[in-house]
Amino acid sequence: MFPVLDIDSQSEAPLYRQVFQQLRDWIASGKLPKGSRLPATRELAGLLGLNRTTISAAYELLESEGLIAGQVGRGSFVIGDVDRQPQGLDWRTLLAPSLPGPTLAQSTTAASETISFAASRPSELLFPMEAFRTSCEEVIRGGEISSILQLGSPGGYAPLRQYLIAEALRHGAMGPGDDLIVTSGCQQALDLLQRIIVKAGDTVAIEDPVYPGVKNLFSFAGARSVGVRIGPDGIDLDDLQRIFEKDRPKALVITPNFQNPTGATMPLQSRQNLLRMARAAGVVLIENDTYGDLRYEGSPIPSLKQLDGGADTILLRSYSKVAFPGLRVGWAIGPRAVIARMVEAKQLSDLHSDQLSQAVLLRFAESGRLESHRQKTLKAGAEKLKTALSACERWLPAGSAFTRPQGGMNIWVRLPEPLDAGELLTRAQREGVTYLPGRYFTVSRPDPGGLRLSFAGLTREKIQTGISILGGIFSTELERTDSARSMEPAPAMV
Amino acid sequence: MFPVLDIDSQSEAPLYRQVFQQLRDWIASGKLPKGSRLPATRELAGLLGLNRTTISAAYELLESEGLIAGQVGRGSFVIGDVDRQPQGLDWRTLLAPSLPGPTLAQSTTAASETISFAASRPSELLFPMEAFRTSCEEVIRGGEISSILQLGSPGGYAPLRQYLIAEALRHGAMGPGDDLIVTSGCQQALDLLQRIIVKAGDTVAIEDPVYPGVKNLFSFAGARSVGVRIGPDGIDLDDLQRIFEKDRPKALVITPNFQNPTGATMPLQSRQNLLRMARAAGVVLIENDTYGDLRYEGSPIPSLKQLDGGADTILLRSYSKVAFPGLRVGWAIGPRAVIARMVEAKQLSDLHSDQLSQAVLLRFAESGRLESHRQKTLKAGAEKLKTALSACERWLPAGSAFTRPQGGMNIWVRLPEPLDAGELLTRAQREGVTYLPGRYFTVSRPDPGGLRLSFAGLTREKIQTGISILGGIFSTELERTDSARSMEPAPAMV
Repeated sequence: MFPVLDIDSQSEAPLYRQVFQQLRDWIASGKLPKGSRLPATRELAGLLGLNRTTISAAYELLESEGLIAGQVGRGSFVIGDVDRQPQGLDWRTLLAPSLPGPTLAQSTTAASETISFAASRPSELLFPMEAFRTSCEEVIRGGEISSILQLGSPGGYAPLRQYLIAEALRHGAMGPGDDLIVTSGCQQALDLLQRIIVKAGDTVAIEDPVYPGVKNLFSFAGARSVGVRIGPDGIDLDDLQRIFEKDRPKALVITPNFQNPTGATMPLQSRQNLLRMARAAGVVLIENDTYGDLRYEGSPIPSLKQLDGGADTILLRSYSKVAFPGLRVGWAIGPRAVIARMVEAKQLSDLHSDQLSQAVLLRFAESGRLESHRQKTLKAGAEKLKTALSACERWLPAGSAFTRPQGGMNIWVRLPEPLDAGELLTRAQREGVTYLPGRYFTVSRPDPGGLRLSFAGLTREKIQTGISILGGIFSTELERTDSARSMEPAPAMV
Repeated sequence: MFPVLDIDSQSEAPLYRQVFQQLRDWIASGKLPKGSRLPATRELAGLLGLNRTTISAAYELLESEGLIAGQVGRGSFVIGDVDRQPQGLDWRTLLAPSLPGPTLAQSTTAASETISFAASRPSELLFPMEAFRTSCEEVIRGGEISSILQLGSPGGYAPLRQYLIAEALRHGAMGPGDDLIVTSGCQQALDLLQRIIVKAGDTVAIEDPVYPGVKNLFSFAGARSVGVRIGPDGIDLDDLQRIFEKDRPKALVITPNFQNPTGATMPLQSRQNLLRMARAAGVVLIENDTYGDLRYEGSPIPSLKQLDGGADTILLRSYSKVAFPGLRVGWAIGPRAVIARMVEAKQLSDLHSDQLSQAVLLRFAESGRLESHRQKTLKAGAEKLKTALSACERWLPAGSAFTRPQGGMNIWVRLPEPLDAGELLTRAQREGVTYLPGRYFTVSRPDPGGLRLSFAGLTREKIQTGISILGGIFSTELERTDSARSMEPAPAMV
């Protein structure tokens, strides 16, 4: 029988800290000797009447101190010894502080029966397996395979670089003063830019809300992020102008097409105005265009880089969303001086990107297989988007708002007050549906009712079922709070 | 006819700066209008009586400002316009300063007829192509391929992680408090550690000499590097003790097996002493063991991590040197708290490593193909090493010293005074041989006579020819300086 934990819900100490501290004390005192089994998080949460995530957080802390191990949440065992700790290094003081935000593992590894709206990724059911295998075989049987397997160049696998440059020139997305670097996905391009442009203490303007990969990157580097309000037509240029004047950011990271998480897209006129504003303010423009190729309806709008006539804008693109996320190949196009420094930083980061995937994706693209896969993806995406939007219309409680993107992978929902998407997540997960709540995305404006629905990875049936379950949970909770509210005494007029 | 440049060899301004400035002025004034062709570096160097590298450096600066483009050294053209520059961003002030050191491109892309000792990499002639193709085909026809192509986990592809963990446990290289992260090669593991452990202003102890990937990484992060003297038996522990006391470094990065560039290997006793010293000083030990599997003679010595009984040492390993450098797969083993932070930093760096290569290398390893390839590599490596050492013995001028490693890919040569390996490089390249001179490796102790011979990528014939050519150049230069010296007036006795 597991000893009873003494938790004080009135205490100022967070609940997970109390659980952690008490278990740690028991391990130190021998009350929980090495080898003893801890209850599953669900079980202990039930015993204590606490949220399961509270217990998980406490277990993670114990694990990070090397005190427990095993499959957290299923059965964890005491493996460490608190007394022995001081003989080793004190990693808590040696390491940089941990960051908030979902881990990729959290957003991708839901139980298989769970309907997960948590990851912005394509569906593996749509992967064109034969086209992939053919591309792969052409590479491994081709004459270049020895050089592909040999040490490569930090700028990228030369034939892929040449192909991407030719494509960019053809689309007017590269000027005479520009160069191109292949990166391990868009995330690495952002990281390299952060390293060469942003110093600790600098200010960077980012969209608000924005996906955690952007938000956390700059905090990690010790920079200050300022969130620019984003609406259905992309960032609010009045808000941006105020920020340019007041905060004097060094750079702006922006996703004009199907922004993650909102799906918002900037109209042509806003893009032109933004370019003028950024130029006048001397702000570095980093254009993240990972979703631009996934427009399901409406007409494409030129990118900032295209409108910029090949000047200072830095354009980031990637094969991850339109082909295979597991192959990490993206690229950046920008002024030669910028790309030259990115190449230096790239060499220090990881020497160069994996060449097998670069070569396979080159074959996949230049053979036309990528484009025919993209056409199928667009068709499927249009249907999924339509399904998701009508399910939101039908099932979300009155007072909910949601964006209506014309492409990409994400819809942003705002639940009516006083609903809190973060608090309701546990209940949704219990009913087999998961999503990422607003707190992972908001920068300067807390948005407890916000949540992201990433629909592209799911079938239409799952999208429908998932949103109907969520709608049910949200509506029930709204009715409960409404009736609880109506019984509250009216506030005094002061 | 190209206008005559006016270079002042007495000026304090470096020659390349003078060349750069004058060409830039001509572009600004229209004396060199857009579209005009610059002479090849070799040609202009000849005209001005300057070194070709001086001209290259000037051209690179012009290129980085977007003023010229083309195949530098063959024919570069004016493409930019100095007057237009101020309208755009001033990238010189916006970007972090550039770092010294060879680029990977420099060390890997010598003309094909050049004998290059410049890259520490295996020979592609030894790549086991059929074993690679079979592994690749098993992966692309296997049942896991959809999940391999889908978004993965920042900790690594789970089946590869499990395999590596099982191997590490089997070899006693992992303790109960340890965890493992897959990285994009060893370089990324170092980079992630730098990010979570080293703050700007911190001091890090590194070997002196050490390869540029370590040396530049910490300067880039704003840390101070202190070089620990390294001899044939690895780092000098007395020097290290002084550094521990005086500089109080936060971490020590060390390669106990076949260090790059010296090939030095620490004996068992030194490893044990080092562990005790690091523990007493509270210094984080980062053990880079990329070459440990490439021992051609003598008995293996346990790694620091193995000797450490699974405590605080962080061990870095990689498939790059023993299999295919173009597939970027390495891993780090260390205390759970460290690996957890590395996983966070990894997610911000590039989400996760490429999964196709992770899966292919897993098949390559677990099928036994890696081990049989390694056996062949060891046999070939032993012969190459022997050839390289006897060629050094035979051809290097009297007074030269060189290390005699028992494995790895590198020999460190020190030429007799007053020879400068950096100055002699141009001559060597003219005669069709290249290497990296000491300045790319030294940390606190300039070593103008030092140079690295990376022999593993070459055939025995090329090793022999290359070292005999180098020996000829070095001997001729030594005779010349000796006779020049003997003609100098004797210095006054003061």
